[in-house]
Amino acid sequence: MKIVVLKFGGSSVGSIKKIQNISKIIIGYLKKKYKVIVVSSAMSGETNKLANLTKKISKNFPASEYDSILATGEQVSCSLIAGCLIDKGYKARSWSAWQIPILTSGNYSHSRIVKINKKNILKFLKIGGIPIITGFQGINSENRVATIGRGGSDASAIMLAKFFKAEKCVIYTDVDGVYTTDPNITTNAKKIKTISYEEMLEMASLGAKVMQPHSIQDARLNRIDIEVKSSFKNIAGSTITKRKNILTKNIIRGVSFTKNDTKFTLVGVKDRPGVAASIFEPLYKNAINVDMVVQNISSYKKETDLTFTIKHEDLNKTEKLIKKNKNISFKKIIIDDKVSKVSIIGVGMITTPGVTFRMFSALAKKNINILVISTSEIKISVLVDRKNLKKAVDVLHKEFKLDY
Amino acid sequence: MKIVVLKFGGSSVGSIKKIQNISKIIIGYLKKKYKVIVVSSAMSGETNKLANLTKKISKNFPASEYDSILATGEQVSCSLIAGCLIDKGYKARSWSAWQIPILTSGNYSHSRIVKINKKNILKFLKIGGIPIITGFQGINSENRVATIGRGGSDASAIMLAKFFKAEKCVIYTDVDGVYTTDPNITTNAKKIKTISYEEMLEMASLGAKVMQPHSIQDARLNRIDIEVKSSFKNIAGSTITKRKNILTKNIIRGVSFTKNDTKFTLVGVKDRPGVAASIFEPLYKNAINVDMVVQNISSYKKETDLTFTIKHEDLNKTEKLIKKNKNISFKKIIIDDKVSKVSIIGVGMITTPGVTFRMFSALAKKNINILVISTSEIKISVLVDRKNLKKAVDVLHKEFKLDY
Repeated sequence: MKIVVLKFGGSSVGSIKKIQNISKIIIGYLKKKYKVIVVSSAMSGETNKLANLTKKISKNFPASEYDSILATGEQVSCSLIAGCLIDKGYKARSWSAWQIPILTSGNYSHSRIVKINKKNILKFLKIGGIPIITGFQGINSENRVATIGRGGSDASAIMLAKFFKAEKCVIYTDVDGVYTTDPNITTNAKKIKTISYEEMLEMASLGAKVMQPHSIQDARLNRIDIEVKSSFKNIAGSTITKRKNILTKNIIRGVSFTKNDTKFTLVGVKDRPGVAASIFEPLYKNAINVDMVVQNISSYKKETDLTFTIKHEDLNKTEKLIKKNKNISFKKIIIDDKVSKVSIIGVGMITTPGVTFRMFSALAKKNINILVISTSEIKISVLVDRKNLKKAVDVLHKEFKLDY
Repeated sequence: MKIVVLKFGGSSVGSIKKIQNISKIIIGYLKKKYKVIVVSSAMSGETNKLANLTKKISKNFPASEYDSILATGEQVSCSLIAGCLIDKGYKARSWSAWQIPILTSGNYSHSRIVKINKKNILKFLKIGGIPIITGFQGINSENRVATIGRGGSDASAIMLAKFFKAEKCVIYTDVDGVYTTDPNITTNAKKIKTISYEEMLEMASLGAKVMQPHSIQDARLNRIDIEVKSSFKNIAGSTITKRKNILTKNIIRGVSFTKNDTKFTLVGVKDRPGVAASIFEPLYKNAINVDMVVQNISSYKKETDLTFTIKHEDLNKTEKLIKKNKNISFKKIIIDDKVSKVSIIGVGMITTPGVTFRMFSALAKKNINILVISTSEIKISVLVDRKNLKKAVDVLHKEFKLDY
């Protein structure tokens, strides 16, 4: 069987008209002799609406019931898609996770799919059926509904592709592919035809809202090619695949950035073993994600300046936690809420020397001051004043030949 | 185990504030040492909202998918109630029909509950849990969600009371009980403390919107006492029970009425065997409910006048069907869209002669003309001009000593 998994995100099923539109996309694959497995998210806005109901009852609304509530959004959209296809004369059927079943492990709201029972779906595919499967959810060992985290329908699609050995997995969404940078910041942004899992992972976690990093990681581990396409425009998208499938001479594949970072500098921290752990432990415990960290060791003074960045929304919480932390002492806190992180990404930089130098000198030529630097194997990030953001993206996009 | 089944209708769970309110009612029964099984409808308005989504796709939206969509409304309300109770420190859990399971038979959207597996719920009750169970739904032999018709949460509650041998079943709703007549038409309406299943059946099908007739019938067959109470006011409600539990000397228990009837009279119908069937067959096939029927046989003329009533909303459809019906001939149609049906109900009339006479003479004294008469064992209905409706209800309410 030549199987394709098609995943539709919330915006792709956000209205009845859009559902009618995607039913045409599904029929298109049938005509190409594919056996089609459809995975759908909830209609856009629904998940938030349901989550808000629970918040009105309690800030600590129990996760087991929260998951049961959120899971209904996909049940509705899947039945609407199935009903639409049946109405057009096709053999379709909605499948809730418990009917398949899709088995999860882990905590509620953050579960992972561990097994998919193929029997029922295979039987349905064999008689020419189009199964429309609820994304974002499964059932756990207690026979209760468990969700796999926001955006988790991508993960559902990848796991279905894995278990059913699908030829490919197509993620239909409201963007038409992966771009070298955000087209909203520069019209020079170009669509990327193929990108490696690793590069896409760095792009995603840095703010390219195409796919959840978890799902890309799942696809990478299972060697599943993912095509990201627009459900509104019938044009080629981007394919996320293994490195050796990438045919490009470009060292750098994209320039990503964040807009809402905040920089903390603790000046004159008493330096002793474990001080960094003492600073970050309460932040970790309060689910505050610390991103870039720089420490200037000044051994002769037994003091150090420690700089780190967090998301803007965690500013107040972080400031309180630092100030009431009795395990550290420092002279003062400097907070800069007007910074942005700009990153260049590309597997090519592993084997190419001088990328760092080219990046820094390109920024220097435009008088852009670098506040913090952070590097990984395939990514270099710098923190800059937010007023320099567009200028920095533009110059790096040009420097690494992404403009054309 | 002393078990009580509490059913909450859509208006009782129509907002977060209302859900918090009913959680207090539930806790009240726990304090009285009851094991509590809760059944909930969807939040008011939700079911219609979901149904409207399907209508936008197709007027013939497939019933299997329609049921899957509608069933999500109860899943949300049950999880909200469970979450609210857990948040207050109680051991609660939502149960979807498939988790129990509740088994149905029959067509989608009109299924009936045939079996409830008690094991999981009993286990949960024994460890002190409060199961919050989705009303209105079950799963069928194909392991798919099937609903039991609008208002079906009442039926779910009755069947749960039956299978778990509950001491009683309390229907919480937005009315505070069953009244001798609609309090909106006369301030003399009094709340009825106990009413028999049979009387309630006649009251319900005549427009007293307290409970679905199907559910009352189920309760009657299984001898389950039903208490109808307000979820907003903490006052005694009405109990629906077997005849022998009714302690009252009143022959007539209530005066019910309809507001939106339409009377059709076919004048000069050619009288031959089967003519009535020929008239009503197309109406039946088009789901038009014919209520009262009167035929004046005039054998010497081989002609007859036939009068019947339907709901106002079916007026145009009925007129068209009659006019295009080639199997009948008649001289003219007279349509009166300004009529109402008034009924007196009471099991006492079976053994008491003269009730009919008292009814007719009471109406005559107020110069209210009777257009059509229809009787059953425990009910007498008359059709009157709608302008006489209030006057008719008032005089009958007084005549049969319901005013005090």
